[in-house]
Amino acid sequence: MKKRYMDHIAATPMDPRVFESMVPFLKEHFGNPQSLHSWGQESIEALETARQQVAQLINAQPEEIFFTSSGSESNNMAVKGLAEAKRKQGNHILVSAVEHQSILHSAKKLEKMGFEVEQIPVDEYGLIDLAYLKKSLTDKTVLVSIMLANSEVGTIEPIEQAAEICREKDLVLHTDAVAALGSIEVDVEKLGVTALSLAGDQFYGPKGSAALYIKKGTRIVPLIDGGIQESGRRAGTENTAAIVGLGKAAELAKSEMPERSKKVKAVRDLLLKGLPDKIEHVVVTGHPEKRLPHHASFCVEFVEGESMLLNLDMLGIAVSSGSACTSKALKASHVLIAMGLDHALAQSSLVFSLIEETSKEDIDYLLDVFPPVIERLRKMSPLYSQYLEEKQK
Amino acid sequence: MKKRYMDHIAATPMDPRVFESMVPFLKEHFGNPQSLHSWGQESIEALETARQQVAQLINAQPEEIFFTSSGSESNNMAVKGLAEAKRKQGNHILVSAVEHQSILHSAKKLEKMGFEVEQIPVDEYGLIDLAYLKKSLTDKTVLVSIMLANSEVGTIEPIEQAAEICREKDLVLHTDAVAALGSIEVDVEKLGVTALSLAGDQFYGPKGSAALYIKKGTRIVPLIDGGIQESGRRAGTENTAAIVGLGKAAELAKSEMPERSKKVKAVRDLLLKGLPDKIEHVVVTGHPEKRLPHHASFCVEFVEGESMLLNLDMLGIAVSSGSACTSKALKASHVLIAMGLDHALAQSSLVFSLIEETSKEDIDYLLDVFPPVIERLRKMSPLYSQYLEEKQK
Repeated sequence: MKKRYMDHIAATPMDPRVFESMVPFLKEHFGNPQSLHSWGQESIEALETARQQVAQLINAQPEEIFFTSSGSESNNMAVKGLAEAKRKQGNHILVSAVEHQSILHSAKKLEKMGFEVEQIPVDEYGLIDLAYLKKSLTDKTVLVSIMLANSEVGTIEPIEQAAEICREKDLVLHTDAVAALGSIEVDVEKLGVTALSLAGDQFYGPKGSAALYIKKGTRIVPLIDGGIQESGRRAGTENTAAIVGLGKAAELAKSEMPERSKKVKAVRDLLLKGLPDKIEHVVVTGHPEKRLPHHASFCVEFVEGESMLLNLDMLGIAVSSGSACTSKALKASHVLIAMGLDHALAQSSLVFSLIEETSKEDIDYLLDVFPPVIERLRKMSPLYSQYLEEKQK
Repeated sequence: MKKRYMDHIAATPMDPRVFESMVPFLKEHFGNPQSLHSWGQESIEALETARQQVAQLINAQPEEIFFTSSGSESNNMAVKGLAEAKRKQGNHILVSAVEHQSILHSAKKLEKMGFEVEQIPVDEYGLIDLAYLKKSLTDKTVLVSIMLANSEVGTIEPIEQAAEICREKDLVLHTDAVAALGSIEVDVEKLGVTALSLAGDQFYGPKGSAALYIKKGTRIVPLIDGGIQESGRRAGTENTAAIVGLGKAAELAKSEMPERSKKVKAVRDLLLKGLPDKIEHVVVTGHPEKRLPHHASFCVEFVEGESMLLNLDMLGIAVSSGSACTSKALKASHVLIAMGLDHALAQSSLVFSLIEETSKEDIDYLLDVFPPVIERLRKMSPLYSQYLEEKQK
């Protein structure tokens, strides 16, 4: 059976060129980058090249890039570290209601430390309420964190406008760009953000590779204390191979992203239109246009997301029903609930996130095999029977 | 020129078998371990195998192993997380004076949060003062952290006795076993510890691979908040390849460590005895017997550690003058100062830490080429001239 992977938001396959770039650092060049001898020198040079490559992708300076081990670590470092650094100035934080758990739970941790956390609501498409943001800023506000794009519904947030609002008050704005980077243009200058999280496994780089951009002159309290790595802002022996891979993936994204995204968007559009055409009671979640080019998400009424996912898996197709980070918690997505969906509908969520290999033929296949699956699952659904009964009355 | 790597404490080369174990997870098996589909299933099974391998190496249960990205992260997670979890019971913490910076700086961070941190002094060999530990425990003490072995002087601490003292008061004892694991037997039951840090790049595993053992039933506050990975104790997409490599390295260490250590100790002994025999004014640092089998550290009077390191590098030999995590800070080692050495002597530190490939021939070569280097460096040393003058009087 041909395997068709459509779960970009959980992880992307690694580009073979990224793998090749890592091999020398997994084999011969094993020196600790902080060692003063030539083994260390080889490694530190590779790190600095990668730092440049990542900086170039987002239009930052190399010294503004700090390597971490995951998007979640970058988000923890940003939210906790930027807030703590401003603790004396205030204790009010604003985060959007549709942030990743690593942002929301970091904010919860800060609450335990005496911070006050306020959530910015979103509309039915998942777009944040800019007016709410504006009116909620107080003299005590020290940090705003709003994601660039949402992995569950694909919606791209109006970060530039949010940044303008924050700039008026000289406020620190962090954006979680993990789901966005490599799929849409990300330019920290244009966005106007103070800090930005990114992760390699979202754009054909290695797992365990991630970074936090921090605008020069911004104070941050480290999350991991210890040695002098990453200018003293993130201790721990650097994972040279992963960082080299991240750099290579950034370089490739820089040159190939426009073409990649154009191609994947054309294929995605077939799905975004095709699925609701082929199957009754399917609604698109997220914004119809302001969305990631590889992303198509739906609620398929009367069917549980997990059942669809497992049935598609048996047909060789990988999809998700929400964030992989909480998939096994089996709760309704906080993102969909924040967008105003009821719990039943939120449980019927299905996310297709395409990779560059996904072809028109893959979508044709999906649109062919999926409707009978839904039909079969709905036949077993008490909610659907109930709906049909009520319809016949 | 033949390259001779003797800087195990900074990083070990990766065993080719570890590399081979990782390749499938860098290439085809890229699924997010938290994904519910078969791509995810492949990855989570690999993680659980690795968890068993690591558990077996230290005689723990798999569910007591939590993967992290570095020894420093494990140490931060342990010190901050175990202390915070007991915050209501007390605010007193004891750490040894010779701990790694990731422990000392984590403790410093806790101090800012209202904890009281006390350092356990060490003797001239770097051995902790057990009597001091015993008499310093109070009703407010919530955590003790003492390393298993010191990377700068090789000294192995009396953890079993420390654990006995802590057990009487039902206290949480964490040990940083990063420098020890893979070189000496580490059995959490025998040691009697509550938590233990380890890192793959210290025993021929990959960089970016590390773990924290936490005894079942022990509460800990996560360092990285977010998704449900690692039983909710450490969020972030798992670095599957690194974890698989860590598991393989643990399996190899389990079966091959006794032989490895015996071999490396025989070679190391030639150096430990040979260097002071060949060169005047060379003192061994650390304990003469209670030391890591691959470890030989010295103070070479009247010569700066960094000069020796760079000169040896030019001869193809990699060594260090202390911890790589602080090498570029160029301060005298806090470990040597805690052992009572004066600053001048501490600056003349040189650490040889052998790897399994190091041969008798390598040591012969070293003992051949190194004395002239020292002679040349001493000729340029004002301190040495002064010493000679005073001697002639």
